[in-house]
Amino acid sequence: MAAFQAPKHIQRTKTKTTSFHGRGVRFEETINRANVYYITNQIASIHKKPTPIQVVSVSYPKRSAAKIVEAYYKTPSTTDYNGVYRGKHIDFEAKETENTTRFPLQNILTHQIEHLKLVQHCGGISFLLVSFTKLQRIFLLDVSHISQEIQKKSYISLSFFEEHGIEIENSNQLYLNYLYAVDILIDQKELNYSL
Amino acid sequence: MAAFQAPKHIQRTKTKTTSFHGRGVRFEETINRANVYYITNQIASIHKKPTPIQVVSVSYPKRSAAKIVEAYYKTPSTTDYNGVYRGKHIDFEAKETENTTRFPLQNILTHQIEHLKLVQHCGGISFLLVSFTKLQRIFLLDVSHISQEIQKKSYISLSFFEEHGIEIENSNQLYLNYLYAVDILIDQKELNYSL
Repeated sequence: MAAFQAPKHIQRTKTKTTSFHGRGVRFEETINRANVYYITNQIASIHKKPTPIQVVSVSYPKRSAAKIVEAYYKTPSTTDYNGVYRGKHIDFEAKETENTTRFPLQNILTHQIEHLKLVQHCGGISFLLVSFTKLQRIFLLDVSHISQEIQKKSYISLSFFEEHGIEIENSNQLYLNYLYAVDILIDQKELNYSL
Repeated sequence: MAAFQAPKHIQRTKTKTTSFHGRGVRFEETINRANVYYITNQIASIHKKPTPIQVVSVSYPKRSAAKIVEAYYKTPSTTDYNGVYRGKHIDFEAKETENTTRFPLQNILTHQIEHLKLVQHCGGISFLLVSFTKLQRIFLLDVSHISQEIQKKSYISLSFFEEHGIEIENSNQLYLNYLYAVDILIDQKELNYSL
Protein backbone atom coordinates (compact mmCIF):
# COMPACT_ATOMS: atom_id res chain seq x y z
CA MET A 1 0.00 0.00 0.00
CA ALA A 2 1.44 3.33 -1.09
CA ALA A 3 1.02 6.15 1.40
CA PHE A 4 -0.14 9.33 -0.25
CA GLN A 5 -0.57 12.91 0.81
CA ALA A 6 -4.13 13.96 1.55
CA PRO A 7 -5.80 15.97 -1.23
CA LYS A 8 -5.32 19.68 -0.55
CA HIS A 9 -8.94 20.55 0.13
CA ILE A 10 -9.11 17.86 2.81
CA GLN A 11 -5.83 18.88 4.42
CA ARG A 12 -7.03 22.44 4.54
CA THR A 13 -10.32 21.68 6.24
CA LYS A 14 -8.30 20.74 9.32
CA THR A 15 -7.14 24.28 9.93
CA LYS A 16 -9.53 26.48 8.04
CA THR A 17 -13.16 25.57 7.60
CA THR A 18 -13.80 28.16 4.88
CA SER A 19 -11.06 26.75 2.68
CA PHE A 20 -13.45 24.60 0.66
CA HIS A 21 -14.31 27.83 -1.14
CA GLY A 22 -10.65 28.68 -1.66
CA ARG A 23 -8.91 28.87 -5.01
CA GLY A 24 -7.66 25.27 -4.84
CA VAL A 25 -11.06 23.70 -5.07
CA ARG A 26 -12.81 26.32 -7.16
CA PHE A 27 -11.41 25.15 -10.50
CA GLU A 28 -12.47 21.58 -9.77
CA GLU A 29 -15.84 22.85 -8.61
CA THR A 30 -16.45 24.59 -11.94
CA ILE A 31 -15.76 21.26 -13.69
CA ASN A 32 -17.96 19.31 -11.30
CA ARG A 33 -20.83 21.75 -11.80
CA ALA A 34 -20.44 21.47 -15.57
CA ASN A 35 -20.59 17.67 -15.23
CA VAL A 36 -23.84 17.90 -13.25
CA TYR A 37 -25.24 20.12 -16.01
CA TYR A 38 -24.10 17.69 -18.75
CA ILE A 39 -25.59 14.69 -16.92
CA THR A 40 -28.89 16.42 -16.08
CA ASN A 41 -29.30 17.43 -19.72
CA GLN A 42 -28.13 14.03 -21.03
CA ILE A 43 -25.30 15.67 -22.98
CA ALA A 44 -22.50 13.59 -21.49
CA SER A 45 -21.83 11.25 -18.58
CA ILE A 46 -18.52 12.39 -17.07
CA HIS A 47 -17.68 11.91 -13.40
CA LYS A 48 -14.89 12.63 -10.99
CA LYS A 49 -13.53 9.39 -9.60
CA PRO A 50 -13.57 8.93 -5.83
CA THR A 51 -10.24 9.44 -4.06
CA PRO A 52 -8.74 5.97 -3.54
CA ILE A 53 -8.55 5.10 0.14
CA GLN A 54 -7.10 2.01 1.80
CA VAL A 55 -9.42 0.99 4.61
CA VAL A 56 -7.62 -0.74 7.48
CA SER A 57 -10.19 -0.86 10.25
CA VAL A 58 -13.96 -0.44 10.46
CA SER A 59 -16.16 -0.35 13.54
CA TYR A 60 -19.85 -1.24 13.56
CA PRO A 61 -21.73 0.83 16.14
CA LYS A 62 -25.17 -0.69 16.81
CA ARG A 63 -27.98 0.71 14.65
CA SER A 64 -25.51 3.04 12.89
CA ALA A 65 -23.64 3.06 9.64
CA ALA A 66 -20.26 1.33 9.52
CA LYS A 67 -17.60 3.76 10.70
CA ILE A 68 -14.13 3.67 9.21
CA VAL A 69 -11.65 4.32 12.04
CA GLU A 70 -8.34 3.75 10.29
CA ALA A 71 -7.60 4.40 6.63
CA TYR A 72 -4.96 5.99 4.40
CA TYR A 73 -4.90 7.83 1.10
CA LYS A 74 -3.53 5.80 -1.78
CA THR A 75 -1.75 7.04 -4.89
CA PRO A 76 -4.37 7.33 -7.63
CA SER A 77 -3.69 4.83 -10.44
CA THR A 78 -5.50 6.81 -13.10
CA THR A 79 -6.75 10.34 -13.69
CA ASP A 80 -9.49 12.26 -11.89
CA TYR A 81 -12.16 12.44 -14.56
CA ASN A 82 -13.59 10.13 -17.18
CA GLY A 83 -16.78 9.33 -19.01
CA VAL A 84 -18.49 9.38 -22.39
CA TYR A 85 -19.48 12.16 -24.81
CA ARG A 86 -20.54 11.98 -28.49
CA GLY A 87 -19.76 8.26 -28.41
CA LYS A 88 -16.17 8.97 -27.37
CA HIS A 89 -14.42 7.90 -24.21
CA ILE A 90 -13.22 11.04 -22.42
CA ASP A 91 -10.38 10.96 -19.86
CA PHE A 92 -8.54 13.87 -18.32
CA GLU A 93 -6.63 15.29 -15.41
CA ALA A 94 -7.50 18.81 -14.21
CA LYS A 95 -4.83 20.96 -12.56
CA GLU A 96 -4.23 24.57 -11.75
CA THR A 97 -1.08 26.57 -11.19
CA GLU A 98 -0.32 30.02 -9.79
CA ASN A 99 2.74 30.16 -12.03
CA THR A 100 2.28 32.73 -14.82
CA THR A 101 4.77 31.41 -17.40
CA ARG A 102 4.75 27.62 -17.16
CA PHE A 103 2.90 24.60 -15.82
CA PRO A 104 5.18 22.43 -13.65
CA LEU A 105 4.72 18.76 -14.59
CA GLN A 106 5.46 17.54 -11.07
CA ASN A 107 1.77 18.30 -10.52
CA ILE A 108 1.04 15.18 -12.55
CA LEU A 109 2.29 11.71 -11.73
CA THR A 110 4.26 9.93 -14.46
CA HIS A 111 1.92 6.96 -14.47
CA GLN A 112 -1.04 9.32 -14.94
CA ILE A 113 0.53 10.52 -18.20
CA GLU A 114 1.16 6.89 -19.16
CA HIS A 115 -2.49 6.23 -18.43
CA LEU A 116 -3.60 9.13 -20.68
CA LYS A 117 -1.37 7.77 -23.46
CA LEU A 118 -2.84 4.27 -23.14
CA VAL A 119 -6.34 5.74 -23.32
CA GLN A 120 -5.37 7.50 -26.54
CA HIS A 121 -3.83 4.27 -27.88
CA CYS A 122 -7.16 2.51 -27.22
CA GLY A 123 -9.09 5.15 -29.18
CA GLY A 124 -10.17 7.48 -26.39
CA ILE A 125 -9.87 11.27 -26.09
CA SER A 126 -7.41 12.14 -23.31
CA PHE A 127 -5.99 15.47 -22.27
CA LEU A 128 -4.90 17.84 -19.53
CA LEU A 129 -7.13 20.70 -18.43
CA VAL A 130 -4.86 23.37 -16.97
CA SER A 131 -5.87 26.61 -15.29
CA PHE A 132 -3.35 29.44 -14.94
CA THR A 133 -5.23 30.99 -12.04
CA LYS A 134 -3.42 34.34 -11.88
CA LEU A 135 -3.84 34.85 -15.62
CA GLN A 136 -7.43 33.58 -15.56
CA ARG A 137 -6.64 31.46 -18.62
CA ILE A 138 -7.64 27.82 -19.07
CA PHE A 139 -6.31 25.40 -21.70
CA LEU A 140 -7.10 21.91 -22.91
CA LEU A 141 -3.95 20.12 -24.13
CA ASP A 142 -4.30 16.82 -25.97
CA VAL A 143 -2.00 14.10 -24.62
CA SER A 144 -0.42 13.64 -28.06
CA HIS A 145 1.53 16.88 -27.41
CA ILE A 146 3.15 15.55 -24.24
CA SER A 147 6.32 14.11 -25.73
CA GLN A 148 9.18 12.47 -23.86
CA GLU A 149 11.21 15.67 -24.34
CA ILE A 150 8.52 17.64 -22.53
CA GLN A 151 8.40 15.06 -19.77
CA LYS A 152 12.18 15.39 -19.35
CA LYS A 153 11.93 19.19 -19.15
CA SER A 154 9.29 18.64 -16.43
CA TYR A 155 7.28 21.70 -17.32
CA ILE A 156 5.07 22.97 -20.13
CA SER A 157 5.45 26.65 -21.02
CA LEU A 158 2.47 28.95 -21.40
CA SER A 159 3.51 29.62 -25.02
CA PHE A 160 3.33 25.87 -25.71
CA PHE A 161 -0.26 25.87 -24.44
CA GLU A 162 -0.96 28.92 -26.63
CA GLU A 163 0.44 27.14 -29.68
CA HIS A 164 -0.84 23.59 -29.20
CA GLY A 165 -3.69 23.82 -26.70
CA ILE A 166 -7.30 24.88 -27.06
CA GLU A 167 -8.13 27.86 -24.87
CA ILE A 168 -11.44 27.85 -23.04
CA GLU A 169 -13.05 31.17 -22.30
CA ASN A 170 -14.69 31.09 -18.94
CA SER A 171 -17.10 33.97 -18.91
CA ASN A 172 -19.38 31.97 -16.63
CA GLN A 173 -17.52 31.74 -13.33
CA LEU A 174 -19.81 29.07 -11.92
CA TYR A 175 -19.19 26.26 -14.33
CA LEU A 176 -16.60 25.55 -16.98
CA ASN A 177 -18.08 24.48 -20.31
CA TYR A 178 -15.00 22.45 -21.24
CA LEU A 179 -16.93 20.32 -23.75
CA TYR A 180 -16.64 23.39 -26.01
CA ALA A 181 -12.93 22.58 -26.32
CA VAL A 182 -13.56 18.82 -26.51
CA ASP A 183 -15.81 19.44 -29.53
CA ILE A 184 -12.97 21.27 -31.27
CA LEU A 185 -10.52 18.49 -30.37
CA ILE A 186 -12.83 15.72 -31.67
CA ASP A 187 -13.44 17.65 -34.91
CA GLN A 188 -9.67 18.18 -35.38
CA LYS A 189 -9.03 14.47 -34.89
CA GLU A 190 -11.80 13.43 -37.28
CA LEU A 191 -10.51 15.90 -39.87
CA ASN A 192 -6.97 14.54 -39.58
CA TYR A 193 -8.34 11.02 -39.85
CA SER A 194 -10.30 11.75 -43.02
CA LEU A 195 -7.45 13.61 -44.79
CA MET B 1 -24.03 12.38 3.12
CA ALA B 2 -25.75 9.08 2.47
CA ALA B 3 -24.69 6.33 4.85
CA PHE B 4 -23.96 3.12 3.05
CA GLN B 5 -23.30 -0.45 4.02
CA ALA B 6 -19.68 -1.49 3.86
CA PRO B 7 -18.79 -3.61 0.83
CA LYS B 8 -19.06 -7.28 1.70
CA HIS B 9 -15.40 -8.16 1.48
CA ILE B 10 -14.56 -5.39 3.96
CA GLN B 11 -17.33 -6.39 6.34
CA ARG B 12 -16.12 -9.94 6.25
CA THR B 13 -12.53 -9.16 7.08
CA LYS B 14 -13.76 -8.20 10.55
CA THR B 15 -14.60 -11.76 11.44
CA LYS B 16 -12.74 -13.98 9.02
CA THR B 17 -9.33 -13.15 7.68
CA THR B 18 -9.34 -15.74 4.92
CA SER B 19 -12.53 -14.36 3.42
CA PHE B 20 -10.73 -12.30 0.80
CA HIS B 21 -10.40 -15.54 -1.08
CA GLY B 22 -14.07 -16.29 -0.58
CA ARG B 23 -16.61 -16.55 -3.34
CA GLY B 24 -17.80 -12.93 -2.95
CA VAL B 25 -14.57 -11.38 -4.06
CA ARG B 26 -13.42 -14.05 -6.47
CA PHE B 27 -15.66 -13.02 -9.36
CA GLU B 28 -14.46 -9.42 -9.05
CA GLU B 29 -10.90 -10.66 -8.80
CA THR B 30 -11.18 -12.51 -12.10
CA ILE B 31 -12.33 -9.24 -13.71
CA ASN B 32 -9.59 -7.21 -12.04
CA ARG B 33 -6.94 -9.67 -13.21
CA ALA B 34 -8.30 -9.52 -16.76
CA ASN B 35 -8.08 -5.71 -16.58
CA VAL B 36 -4.42 -5.89 -15.53
CA TYR B 37 -3.78 -8.19 -18.49
CA TYR B 38 -5.61 -5.85 -20.90
CA ILE B 39 -3.71 -2.80 -19.61
CA THR B 40 -0.31 -4.51 -19.62
CA ASN B 41 -0.85 -5.62 -23.21
CA GLN B 42 -2.35 -2.27 -24.26
CA ILE B 43 -5.58 -3.95 -25.34
CA ALA B 44 -7.91 -1.83 -23.22
CA SER B 45 -7.81 0.58 -20.32
CA ILE B 46 -10.58 -0.49 -17.96
CA HIS B 47 -10.43 0.11 -14.20
CA LYS B 48 -12.50 -0.50 -11.12
CA LYS B 49 -13.46 2.76 -9.51
CA PRO B 50 -12.44 3.32 -5.90
CA THR B 51 -15.19 2.88 -3.31
CA PRO B 52 -16.52 6.37 -2.50
CA ILE B 53 -15.77 7.34 1.08
CA GLN B 54 -16.76 10.49 2.97
CA VAL B 55 -13.78 11.58 5.05
CA VAL B 56 -14.77 13.40 8.24
CA SER B 57 -11.56 13.60 10.22
CA VAL B 58 -7.86 13.17 9.46
CA SER B 59 -4.93 13.17 11.84
CA TYR B 60 -1.36 14.02 10.87
CA PRO B 61 1.13 12.02 12.92
CA LYS B 62 4.62 13.55 12.63
CA ARG B 63 6.74 12.08 9.83
CA SER B 64 3.92 9.74 8.86
CA ALA B 65 1.27 9.63 6.20
CA ALA B 66 -2.02 11.34 6.92
CA LYS B 67 -4.27 8.96 8.84
CA ILE B 68 -8.01 9.02 8.33
CA VAL B 69 -9.65 8.46 11.72
CA GLU B 70 -13.32 8.99 10.89
CA ALA B 71 -14.97 8.25 7.56
CA TYR B 72 -18.09 6.61 6.14
CA TYR B 73 -19.01 4.66 3.03
CA LYS B 74 -21.09 6.64 0.55
CA THR B 75 -23.62 5.31 -1.95
CA PRO B 76 -21.79 4.94 -5.27
CA SER B 77 -23.18 7.36 -7.88
CA THR B 78 -22.12 5.28 -10.85
CA THR B 79 -21.07 1.72 -11.63
CA ASP B 80 -17.95 -0.16 -10.58
CA TYR B 81 -16.07 -0.42 -13.85
CA ASN B 82 -15.39 1.80 -16.83
CA GLY B 83 -12.78 2.51 -19.45
CA VAL B 84 -12.03 2.37 -23.15
CA TYR B 85 -11.71 -0.49 -25.67
CA ARG B 86 -11.66 -0.42 -29.50
CA GLY B 87 -12.39 3.31 -29.32
CA LYS B 88 -15.58 2.64 -27.35
CA HIS B 89 -16.45 3.81 -23.87
CA ILE B 90 -17.14 0.73 -21.74
CA ASP B 91 -19.18 0.91 -18.53
CA PHE B 92 -20.54 -1.96 -16.47
CA GLU B 93 -21.60 -3.30 -13.13
CA ALA B 94 -20.44 -6.79 -12.10
CA LYS B 95 -22.56 -8.87 -9.74
CA GLU B 96 -22.90 -12.44 -8.70
CA THR B 97 -25.76 -14.43 -7.27
CA GLU B 98 -26.15 -17.81 -5.63
CA ASN B 99 -29.68 -18.00 -6.98
CA THR B 100 -29.97 -20.67 -9.70
CA THR B 101 -33.06 -19.43 -11.58
CA ARG B 102 -32.99 -15.62 -11.45
CA PHE B 103 -30.85 -12.57 -10.73
CA PRO B 104 -32.51 -10.33 -8.10
CA LEU B 105 -32.32 -6.70 -9.25
CA GLN B 106 -32.12 -5.35 -5.70
CA ASN B 107 -28.42 -6.11 -6.08
CA ILE B 108 -28.25 -3.06 -8.35
CA LEU B 109 -29.27 0.45 -7.32
CA THR B 110 -31.90 2.14 -9.51
CA HIS B 111 -29.65 5.11 -10.22
CA GLN B 112 -26.91 2.72 -11.37
CA ILE B 113 -29.28 1.42 -14.06
CA GLU B 114 -30.16 5.03 -14.94
CA HIS B 115 -26.43 5.71 -15.21
CA LEU B 116 -25.94 2.73 -17.59
CA LYS B 117 -28.83 4.01 -19.72
CA LEU B 118 -27.34 7.52 -19.89
CA VAL B 119 -23.99 6.03 -20.96
CA GLN B 120 -25.79 4.17 -23.74
CA HIS B 121 -27.63 7.37 -24.73
CA CYS B 122 -24.24 9.13 -25.02
CA GLY B 123 -22.91 6.42 -27.33
CA GLY B 124 -21.12 4.16 -24.86
CA ILE B 125 -21.31 0.39 -24.39
CA SER B 126 -22.95 -0.39 -21.04
CA PHE B 127 -24.02 -3.67 -19.55
CA LEU B 128 -24.33 -5.96 -16.57
CA LEU B 129 -21.89 -8.79 -16.01
CA VAL B 130 -23.67 -11.41 -13.93
CA SER B 131 -22.24 -14.59 -12.49
CA PHE B 132 -24.55 -17.40 -11.41
CA THR B 133 -21.99 -18.87 -9.06
CA LYS B 134 -23.68 -22.21 -8.32
CA LEU B 135 -24.25 -22.84 -12.04
CA GLN B 136 -20.78 -21.57 -12.97
CA ARG B 137 -22.35 -19.55 -15.77
CA ILE B 138 -21.54 -15.93 -16.56
CA PHE B 139 -23.51 -13.59 -18.82
CA LEU B 140 -23.10 -10.12 -20.28
CA LEU B 141 -26.46 -8.38 -20.68
CA ASP B 142 -26.62 -5.12 -22.65
CA VAL B 143 -28.49 -2.36 -20.80
CA SER B 144 -30.93 -2.00 -23.72
CA HIS B 145 -32.61 -5.20 -22.50
CA ILE B 146 -33.34 -3.79 -19.05
CA SER B 147 -36.80 -2.37 -19.68
CA GLN B 148 -39.07 -0.66 -17.17
CA GLU B 149 -41.12 -3.87 -17.04
CA ILE B 150 -38.06 -5.79 -15.94
CA GLN B 151 -37.24 -3.13 -13.37
CA LYS B 152 -40.78 -3.46 -11.98
CA LYS B 153 -40.46 -7.24 -11.75
CA SER B 154 -37.21 -6.60 -9.83
CA TYR B 155 -35.49 -9.72 -11.12
CA ILE B 156 -34.09 -11.07 -14.38
CA SER B 157 -34.67 -14.77 -15.02
CA LEU B 158 -31.90 -17.10 -16.11
CA SER B 159 -33.85 -17.88 -19.30
CA PHE B 160 -33.87 -14.14 -20.12
CA PHE B 161 -30.08 -14.12 -19.86
CA GLU B 162 -29.95 -17.24 -22.05
CA GLU B 163 -32.11 -15.55 -24.68
CA HIS B 164 -30.76 -11.97 -24.66
CA GLY B 165 -27.36 -12.14 -22.99
CA ILE B 166 -23.96 -13.22 -24.26
CA GLU B 167 -22.57 -16.14 -22.29
CA ILE B 168 -18.90 -16.09 -21.40
CA GLU B 169 -17.12 -19.38 -21.03
CA ASN B 170 -14.67 -19.20 -18.19
CA SER B 171 -12.33 -22.09 -18.74
CA ASN B 172 -9.53 -20.03 -17.21
CA GLN B 173 -10.47 -19.72 -13.55
CA LEU B 174 -7.91 -17.01 -12.85
CA TYR B 175 -9.15 -14.29 -15.08
CA LEU B 176 -12.35 -13.63 -16.99
CA ASN B 177 -11.81 -12.66 -20.62
CA TYR B 178 -15.03 -10.65 -20.74
CA LEU B 179 -13.86 -8.61 -23.76
CA TYR B 180 -14.69 -11.72 -25.77
CA ALA B 181 -18.36 -10.92 -25.10
CA VAL B 182 -17.83 -7.17 -25.55
CA ASP B 183 -16.46 -7.89 -29.04
CA ILE B 184 -19.65 -9.76 -29.93
CA LEU B 185 -21.77 -6.95 -28.48
CA ILE B 186 -19.91 -4.23 -30.42
CA ASP B 187 -20.17 -6.24 -33.64
CA GLN B 188 -23.92 -6.78 -33.10
CA LYS B 189 -24.43 -3.05 -32.56
CA GLU B 190 -22.41 -2.08 -35.62
CA LEU B 191 -24.31 -4.62 -37.72
CA ASN B 192 -27.67 -3.22 -36.54
CA TYR B 193 -26.44 0.29 -37.23
CA SER B 194 -25.36 -0.52 -40.79
CA LEU B 195 -28.57 -2.40 -41.69
